[in-house]
Amino acid sequence: MITLHETAVSGNCYKVRLLLAQLGIPVRRVEFDIDALRAGRTHTEAFLAMNPEGRVPVAELEDGSFLPESNAILVYFAEGTPFLPADRLERAHVMRWLFWEQYSHEPYIAVARAWRTYFGIPAGREAELPLREARGYVALDVLERTLADRAFLVGDRYTIADIAIYAYTHVAAEGGFEMARYPAVRAWLARVAAQPGHIAIND
Amino acid sequence: MITLHETAVSGNCYKVRLLLAQLGIPVRRVEFDIDALRAGRTHTEAFLAMNPEGRVPVAELEDGSFLPESNAILVYFAEGTPFLPADRLERAHVMRWLFWEQYSHEPYIAVARAWRTYFGIPAGREAELPLREARGYVALDVLERTLADRAFLVGDRYTIADIAIYAYTHVAAEGGFEMARYPAVRAWLARVAAQPGHIAIND
Repeated sequence: MITLHETAVSGNCYKVRLLLAQLGIPVRRVEFDIDALRAGRTHTEAFLAMNPEGRVPVAELEDGSFLPESNAILVYFAEGTPFLPADRLERAHVMRWLFWEQYSHEPYIAVARAWRTYFGIPAGREAELPLREARGYVALDVLERTLADRAFLVGDRYTIADIAIYAYTHVAAEGGFEMARYPAVRAWLARVAAQPGHIAIND
Repeated sequence: MITLHETAVSGNCYKVRLLLAQLGIPVRRVEFDIDALRAGRTHTEAFLAMNPEGRVPVAELEDGSFLPESNAILVYFAEGTPFLPADRLERAHVMRWLFWEQYSHEPYIAVARAWRTYFGIPAGREAELPLREARGYVALDVLERTLADRAFLVGDRYTIADIAIYAYTHVAAEGGFEMARYPAVRAWLARVAAQPGHIAIND
């Protein structure tokens, strides 16, 4: 069985559990809670042997090998399923949104949420919060513009691009983001949550 | 013919040109130089129609459609070639390193380089530079640890994982990073530069 080394409240971990649930793939969960993260339990030599970056999620595969990076895990399990299209151009746009999520969305929306809701703002980095909020709103603006005339991010079908971006967007309010101004994003969040086999982040 | 909307000195753009050169795919280049970036020429309505994020590179494909995100462009062109392995686990690790590059390497090494060499530090963000430098060294430490016992990042073969991470690592000194302490990384940089069809960032 797959083992997921994870933090339950992390959107990066949740996106993996959501895909696995919708694929019907059972998973054993090994939890590193907020206290464990604070205590550096993802920076032990044992953990760094799984992921030299010292971060969850890490998927421990059937062969005993370890795969870090949430979106790489999504691609790995989605390959050959409807969650990752076979069409070359659609695949490219799924990848495009996965990279966008990690570069232009997660560092702002997820980090603002982590600081506001779980860890507090690190000492000396208070000035970063408004910058991260501003960039988070840029990301939400890009989503709103993109979703204004389409049901899902790529090819009018639910894919891992939607899963990856849903993970932190649906809890953006915990980062202080006002979602009322994003009607197209909110309608898309509802469509994603209505997909067969959907699970909540705290399931 | 493919058109690449790019900034020549950008590692994210260079990585695409490097792969295309090694694949023998000709490319027409449309340059947005540093002055054009400063003047906001990637934030016009015309540019945002290509990439709502307002960033280079954007690949304009043969069908006239636009593909942003450097690493998504790499995956698109590498599919079916030796630069992206067919083996499922090797592919997963190529993806893992591509996501790592955009999340844990580029925001620190490329941004430190951009600030030190091209744009200056944005007003009011001076406190971020030492943090970005520290995280850049973490990324280089991860690379050094990974490359200590292997020739390339995945499967002992040159792939787009190497191309993506080479792009900014080989100019990390322009970000103020001291590379002398990274012998395994430097040996790998030399191996990458010795690959058939290699081009320099300023070619």
